[in-house]
Amino acid sequence: PSDGGSSSGSESSKDSSRCSTPVLDADRHERLREKMRRRQDAGDKWFSLEFFPPRTANAAVNLISRFDRMGAGGPLFIDVTWHPAGDPGSDKETSSMIIANTAVNYCGLETILHMTCCNQTKDDITGHLQKAKRLGLKNIMALRGDPIGEEWEEEVDGFNYAVDLVKHIRNEFDDYFDICVAGYPKGHPEAESYEADLRHLKEKVLAGADFIITQLFFRSETFLKFMKDCQAIGITCPIIPGIFPIQGYHSLRQLVKLSKLEVPQEIKDVIEPIKDNDAAIRNYGVELAVSMCRELLDSGMVHGLHFYTLNREVATTDVLKRLGIWKEDPRRPLPWAVSAHPKRRVEDVRPIFWASRPKSYIYRTQEWDDFPNGRWGNSSSPAFGELKDYYLFYLKSKSPREELLKMWGEELTGEESVFEVFTCYITGEPNKNGHKVTCMPWNDDPLATETNLLKEQLEKVNRRGILTINSQPNINGKPSTDPIVGWGPSGGYVFQKAYLEFFTSSEIVMALLKVLKKYELRVNYHIVNVKGQNITNAPDLQPNAVTWGIFPGREIIQPTVVDPVSFLSWKDEAFALWIEQWAKLYEEESPSRMIIQYIHDNYYLVNLVDNDFPLENCLWQVVDDTFELLNSPTQE
Amino acid sequence: PSDGGSSSGSESSKDSSRCSTPVLDADRHERLREKMRRRQDAGDKWFSLEFFPPRTANAAVNLISRFDRMGAGGPLFIDVTWHPAGDPGSDKETSSMIIANTAVNYCGLETILHMTCCNQTKDDITGHLQKAKRLGLKNIMALRGDPIGEEWEEEVDGFNYAVDLVKHIRNEFDDYFDICVAGYPKGHPEAESYEADLRHLKEKVLAGADFIITQLFFRSETFLKFMKDCQAIGITCPIIPGIFPIQGYHSLRQLVKLSKLEVPQEIKDVIEPIKDNDAAIRNYGVELAVSMCRELLDSGMVHGLHFYTLNREVATTDVLKRLGIWKEDPRRPLPWAVSAHPKRRVEDVRPIFWASRPKSYIYRTQEWDDFPNGRWGNSSSPAFGELKDYYLFYLKSKSPREELLKMWGEELTGEESVFEVFTCYITGEPNKNGHKVTCMPWNDDPLATETNLLKEQLEKVNRRGILTINSQPNINGKPSTDPIVGWGPSGGYVFQKAYLEFFTSSEIVMALLKVLKKYELRVNYHIVNVKGQNITNAPDLQPNAVTWGIFPGREIIQPTVVDPVSFLSWKDEAFALWIEQWAKLYEEESPSRMIIQYIHDNYYLVNLVDNDFPLENCLWQVVDDTFELLNSPTQE
Repeated sequence: PSDGGSSSGSESSKDSSRCSTPVLDADRHERLREKMRRRQDAGDKWFSLEFFPPRTANAAVNLISRFDRMGAGGPLFIDVTWHPAGDPGSDKETSSMIIANTAVNYCGLETILHMTCCNQTKDDITGHLQKAKRLGLKNIMALRGDPIGEEWEEEVDGFNYAVDLVKHIRNEFDDYFDICVAGYPKGHPEAESYEADLRHLKEKVLAGADFIITQLFFRSETFLKFMKDCQAIGITCPIIPGIFPIQGYHSLRQLVKLSKLEVPQEIKDVIEPIKDNDAAIRNYGVELAVSMCRELLDSGMVHGLHFYTLNREVATTDVLKRLGIWKEDPRRPLPWAVSAHPKRRVEDVRPIFWASRPKSYIYRTQEWDDFPNGRWGNSSSPAFGELKDYYLFYLKSKSPREELLKMWGEELTGEESVFEVFTCYITGEPNKNGHKVTCMPWNDDPLATETNLLKEQLEKVNRRGILTINSQPNINGKPSTDPIVGWGPSGGYVFQKAYLEFFTSSEIVMALLKVLKKYELRVNYHIVNVKGQNITNAPDLQPNAVTWGIFPGREIIQPTVVDPVSFLSWKDEAFALWIEQWAKLYEEESPSRMIIQYIHDNYYLVNLVDNDFPLENCLWQVVDDTFELLNSPTQE
Repeated sequence: PSDGGSSSGSESSKDSSRCSTPVLDADRHERLREKMRRRQDAGDKWFSLEFFPPRTANAAVNLISRFDRMGAGGPLFIDVTWHPAGDPGSDKETSSMIIANTAVNYCGLETILHMTCCNQTKDDITGHLQKAKRLGLKNIMALRGDPIGEEWEEEVDGFNYAVDLVKHIRNEFDDYFDICVAGYPKGHPEAESYEADLRHLKEKVLAGADFIITQLFFRSETFLKFMKDCQAIGITCPIIPGIFPIQGYHSLRQLVKLSKLEVPQEIKDVIEPIKDNDAAIRNYGVELAVSMCRELLDSGMVHGLHFYTLNREVATTDVLKRLGIWKEDPRRPLPWAVSAHPKRRVEDVRPIFWASRPKSYIYRTQEWDDFPNGRWGNSSSPAFGELKDYYLFYLKSKSPREELLKMWGEELTGEESVFEVFTCYITGEPNKNGHKVTCMPWNDDPLATETNLLKEQLEKVNRRGILTINSQPNINGKPSTDPIVGWGPSGGYVFQKAYLEFFTSSEIVMALLKVLKKYELRVNYHIVNVKGQNITNAPDLQPNAVTWGIFPGREIIQPTVVDPVSFLSWKDEAFALWIEQWAKLYEEESPSRMIIQYIHDNYYLVNLVDNDFPLENCLWQVVDDTFELLNSPTQE
């Protein structure tokens, strides 16, 4: 066969490593050190965020929400610290391992897992690393850790220094992990000297570390001198300054004690007089951090800033916003939040059904090795995981039972009181008892901005018993940079078919089916009840693309589909949420619980797609026609 | 894993046989007997066309063109007869096997290959069938054939009757082939009786034949009686009447002699007096065929009509048009003509470069087992076949050398005379010597209707040395039923990015490159010379989708792409056509030949895509800007 005779020039067709799906976002295919390099080459400033594992399951749920919120600001990575005393490699929902796993897989964040090595066997460490790799973690911060007891004793066969851990990772896992190590701008408190500590740092880099994050410091000169000293002895990898915005008197004292650092007198002088005024200290801390960060960035030697957040949001976010490196308008690479697990890099399409429950979708597909390119129906495609996810901490409602009862009704008096809850969620108006409904079993967050476009119509239909749980407007070629519906690279156009998904009674379904005959071809529908009785006009089980984008120099991307096969898996989940999240709030046998149970047993789950995306959305007309038919005296 | 608990209802997700690419056209995935059944169930009338293999290579080229033209009328299938004396299974371009192969693979026609069995060994027959299968043929008409010599003698170990061949095919190839057998409305001339012949026919069906095509007949009653008699003895498969439009006195006489049929007196009475008037006989033949076909269709017993064309076009087409079953507006399932080889059923995307040379693309990819889903670049994708296709009869120009010289110039006087040829091809105006240019080396047919949309601009640029060989306008969501740019099922919308491909001098390329800087992001370009020097701004070797469609209840279809990798294979072909088809018309060392050789050696092949399909096509502006830059006194 011909080789084209043309391997000169700027392209080589033979050894192209082009992946098998369209590359929309180079980010998804780069390792952390490559991203860091690319951002530096492009002159982009970046930041990263450090968190520690929470103590309780409730705190874990809150921390995951914080990951989602702070992730929106665009950190290059986050890191999760390792607490040997807290069983950090276990499967507990509060362990370092599981928190890092959640950040990567469910929040889509590039994540570094810390790992300490002293007082641990090689086998333990290898086990932790294998587990981290299995979970999709790709970056390790290699640390010595604090010895147990006062005196430091070398273990003959164990790990004594971080460098031992770096070597071990490279020996056992080759180049799989990106490795980060710690640098001490003032020298490690236990080092013989500042110079000796620099030599130790160089050893860690030579052993295979990819970059350095420093201990916190209080003056920019401290860092800049350290950086020059590092360069002078031949350390060329990136060195990222660790920034600690002072957030309170006690946290500062504690940290200083642990790190054996000295707080400069000029800072003490400011803080001591205001030590009981938290807000004042935080304001000062933000001020201080901003001016130090500016000095660092202005030096031209610093490209990224690493923040010790202490798991708090406000101070760090303030600093980042004032520095102008918090992404105010995060560009979405795809309409849904991608996962950062390496095997999900190729994932480029999802069923629309899980749009408000992306973590559930990721959970139920975590065992998949392949991600279907829009098709769930052929025999090779993997099954969805079981419905046990109500017990997973990152899928738990952020609201406690009492709050849910206030939103969804302490006592339901009939199906209409359920309609009322749905309607209040849509309108944002308080319910009869004055409580706003900010979440629903199918959606743990307030209404999406995009859904807001449909608010008026949604309100009308929910009031009448069309209980909507998912919808999108039609879009006929808006710029990919559109702040509400845009996604993907600049210069493209995005499209949508109108979509509406709801629960409704069999009476309404019967009328709807008559009406839908008039819309044959234009409207595709799937109507299913909890028993799986299924009515559809979809051709041959094929998926219907409902969101797609056209970009310069790319293939078409169709990230969201209405897929008839996965709809039946979603149906199980959607119906189960009535019981698991709502009915179970009430006593068994109570009237309220029986009302929800009745809906669960008798209602249908319906989805409708209007295929004529360039025309005005006809789905509201379909619903209007249905009610008109129901209200007409001779109902045929 | 959960099975969804939902296998009741109308869908079953587990054993779905959904194929891995979007099914746009059920036709492509059905076997002939299924298509026949579906058309019958839908009440659609259909027709089929019989051809015999040509005697010469030139006649073969013409027959293939006829396949393309008559294929546009929408036959359910064509069939190719088998002439034992003409080496029918060989690789000669005139053999039955190769003509059928070309019809299937290059013309995309469902095709039945005839095969006779008498005087042949089992091994010969098996060899023919294996070859047919390998070439992608899926249907066999199993015939006895005429014995050699006057007397019929049974061979002990050989095939004596068509039923032996049917059994052999089923034994050796299971259900792979659809099998057709012949029926004789008047009884086979050698049969003991009409009844005995019906019993033989039933044996053939019981042995595995799927349907029956009858010998020709002259009165509809003949067929209808035969059909009832067949049904009476339990033949339930489709029986298709063979229609023979009388086209001339001699062909009728010859056929009657061979088939031992008697022409009814009433027909003889009409024909004898006009036997020297070909046109009159043909008109009468068409009249006769139309009224007989009407009677057959009106009977309600006939769903399809099989035409003995005698390799002629006019009479059969006339009959079909008058019956209203010739497709006047053939709906294209895809923008390019699909191939009917079973392994190409999944093919759903092609590079735009071969748009005017689809047979060359099919030829050069015939060894492929997989068809890339838009991507030609990864190492697993197969290479393009060698450039030896100038010697393949179905890629030869339909025009002889003398005619080409008249169109492209007996003598070229410089590059401008080449510009002139391109311009005349675009405008349709005669050249200096009064000859119209109806084909070019890159396009054997007159300008496509779609390209006509761009005629005015194309003329302008060709005149100035932008020698266009391929182009398409931008389309922003026209209905899929649009007569010019539409394709795919009804109810959809089709889109295109504007595309322009041309040869041009290095001087123009230099100016073009400067201009293109202004259009960065909006316009993607690939610029390459014969040596393979390649200049592009395409990201990461990714293909750019330039034609796509959105359909009700489907995934997005993107059948045409500009693919950087396959462009380099196309480049070899596009440059070689200068020499193989044009330069070689002239004597070696002649000035004309040297002019073409100069262009081949020095020009660049350029393609441009305007990514902003909703806006006005900017490629004309790009070209204008280029000429403006060239003409400006200070060229920088």
